[in-house]
Amino acid sequence: MRTQIGIIGAGPAGLLLSHLLHLAGIDSVVLEARSRAYVEERVRAGLLEQGSVDTLTEAGVADRLHRQGLAHHGIELRFDGAGHRIPLTDLTGKVVTIYGQQEVVKDLIAARLAAGTRSGNPAILFEVSDVAVHDVTTDNPRISFTHDGVAQVLDCAFIGGCDGFHGICRGAIPEAIIRVYDRIYPFAWLGILSHSRPVSEELIYARHQDGFALATMRSESVTRLYLQCAPDENLDEWPDSRIWEELHKRLGCGDELQQGKIFQKGVTAMRSYVVEPMRHGRLFLAGDAAHIVPPTGAKGMNLAIADIRVLARGLERFFARNDASLLEQYSEICLRRIWKGQRFSWWMTSMLHRFDGEDRFEHRVQVAELDYVSTSRAAMTTLAENYVGLPYEV
Amino acid sequence: MRTQIGIIGAGPAGLLLSHLLHLAGIDSVVLEARSRAYVEERVRAGLLEQGSVDTLTEAGVADRLHRQGLAHHGIELRFDGAGHRIPLTDLTGKVVTIYGQQEVVKDLIAARLAAGTRSGNPAILFEVSDVAVHDVTTDNPRISFTHDGVAQVLDCAFIGGCDGFHGICRGAIPEAIIRVYDRIYPFAWLGILSHSRPVSEELIYARHQDGFALATMRSESVTRLYLQCAPDENLDEWPDSRIWEELHKRLGCGDELQQGKIFQKGVTAMRSYVVEPMRHGRLFLAGDAAHIVPPTGAKGMNLAIADIRVLARGLERFFARNDASLLEQYSEICLRRIWKGQRFSWWMTSMLHRFDGEDRFEHRVQVAELDYVSTSRAAMTTLAENYVGLPYEV
Repeated sequence: MRTQIGIIGAGPAGLLLSHLLHLAGIDSVVLEARSRAYVEERVRAGLLEQGSVDTLTEAGVADRLHRQGLAHHGIELRFDGAGHRIPLTDLTGKVVTIYGQQEVVKDLIAARLAAGTRSGNPAILFEVSDVAVHDVTTDNPRISFTHDGVAQVLDCAFIGGCDGFHGICRGAIPEAIIRVYDRIYPFAWLGILSHSRPVSEELIYARHQDGFALATMRSESVTRLYLQCAPDENLDEWPDSRIWEELHKRLGCGDELQQGKIFQKGVTAMRSYVVEPMRHGRLFLAGDAAHIVPPTGAKGMNLAIADIRVLARGLERFFARNDASLLEQYSEICLRRIWKGQRFSWWMTSMLHRFDGEDRFEHRVQVAELDYVSTSRAAMTTLAENYVGLPYEV
Repeated sequence: MRTQIGIIGAGPAGLLLSHLLHLAGIDSVVLEARSRAYVEERVRAGLLEQGSVDTLTEAGVADRLHRQGLAHHGIELRFDGAGHRIPLTDLTGKVVTIYGQQEVVKDLIAARLAAGTRSGNPAILFEVSDVAVHDVTTDNPRISFTHDGVAQVLDCAFIGGCDGFHGICRGAIPEAIIRVYDRIYPFAWLGILSHSRPVSEELIYARHQDGFALATMRSESVTRLYLQCAPDENLDEWPDSRIWEELHKRLGCGDELQQGKIFQKGVTAMRSYVVEPMRHGRLFLAGDAAHIVPPTGAKGMNLAIADIRVLARGLERFFARNDASLLEQYSEICLRRIWKGQRFSWWMTSMLHRFDGEDRFEHRVQVAELDYVSTSRAAMTTLAENYVGLPYEV
């Protein structure tokens, strides 16, 4: 099989890349290890920056997003028993939109399958296995894989490594040239989905002496709630009643916290991770394959979309004008935004969580930070402008 | 001896308190352990917030300050080989003023000695010893001390504990009710004074892989330069030539760093320290007696002046209207500002210094923070508004 761009991974990064390339008249094939049903139901992030919404809108895949997404104009910080609203839209002129990552994935899969490829290849191959990349430092890289029991090779001009943190692409960059930046936090999030009305129309980020809590939502009848917990927290010790009790306490909620049926319960690890460079020869890493943020700043999917904007434009310039300059700068341009996103996610995480063993001075500085952020317009604006998304370079 | 307010310590805090009380018609006596010459020559901080200048101006003790002080409208951050100016005045409408703490002390001593006291007591007694406070939880506190070899007692209605970090006043608050917040940094500053032209008209804060450096000034012909060093740095290992070499490297300077005669050399420890509460009965702590900041944010003297504003007004209301409400809130009001100052000083210190044993992720977050602060107007404004001084509550 032959295509222009071989893409590994049918998450938001790989699918958006394939779609943007299609709009630019560039052929691609997406290889995905899981089934279509699996990737369409996998619950992940759910908050889109204004720029991510604009990117999807310009790409013509945001009709349902605009109908079903919930535009938010602010968030609330709660600490020391009081709530403080950060008016995102007043401060930045932008909004954030609640719309599940799996919904973005469904929209992109539908668009890719409807449009197909000019080469006649399938746009997406699901349930492939034994994926490996070859010859990435030559002009003719290849991807080998097995599909329907048949070993195959995809010849291409470039490879998009969009296969997530546990994917195989990152491993193709030799250890001698890769630099890894890694921070594992001493806590995790116990997350639930419940059939109940959200606590508030906007997200609530709460700092409590017993740990962080977050009240968010999937829709007007499904609420998503998180509690800071241990990385190895045993879910057996968390019957529903304990979860609700802890949420009431940490969020400082009364009746506005409706107790619905909990239909999903899980523990999310907290990690900050970056590899540099994000390119090796003709292999380009994008999204979680190259970087992970803790979920506190809601930056994961948005950073992936930003990577893909740069990569798609770089490939477009290469094929349209034989101009490789943007591809040469890919890693550098993406990493500038990624490190800003890492800084923001680390800052939000540090400010809002309880650190065991934290000294009293650190604790008071953390409270002073929250106090400052909720009283200084400039400080609120730094939170807001990062939360809604910093401007794109490309 | 009897007065209304007994003040311990003739630093900026104690002297300003005495002066503001005098303007309000309230009698006080200042007791100082050192000689007048010593306190007038002791080199300490040298940067006044706009609000500090305004406070001294309103108090009528700023004529020389306005003639000799150097008004600054910006500072420069240097990192990764490039300089980035933070335009303080454009962002906040305010300036900072370079004017040595010992000059403020000289001006206040001159004002107090010229005005004298209505009770006929000396306004300031220098070189007192054996100072101790008594009965601070009664309405008749006393200060015992020795002056000119004679043991004396100062009876008063309130005591201003302005005797600095190593003073005796803080110890009068029982351990059972005092809370201490303390952070000792794993580095210090090697500071020099040199007879040479300042590197630049504005301060330069430099982050270098070998450590922080700061270029500031005392006047147009005296420059003040600092290098991050170990807390136990041996000055014998720092001949002038090594100091200049290191400054050239870390500041990234060429000929603009003039090498003059170094006439002072010392090591400044870096500490963050707060005690709560700042009041016990009729004893009020102010300035360094209650809190220490690392010098990076230039907040030390300014926080002391802010404390004194609250204390002087509180005492004024008490004597004029028998209203103790502001005195009751003294600790709470001061601590809100102090913790904001602590947060800012900690943040500037963390962002600009090299931490041994720092992991690679932390280092990159630090650089991302500098990058963000020098490119986002909102982030620049947070630095600027703290640097020029947040608004006063009182």
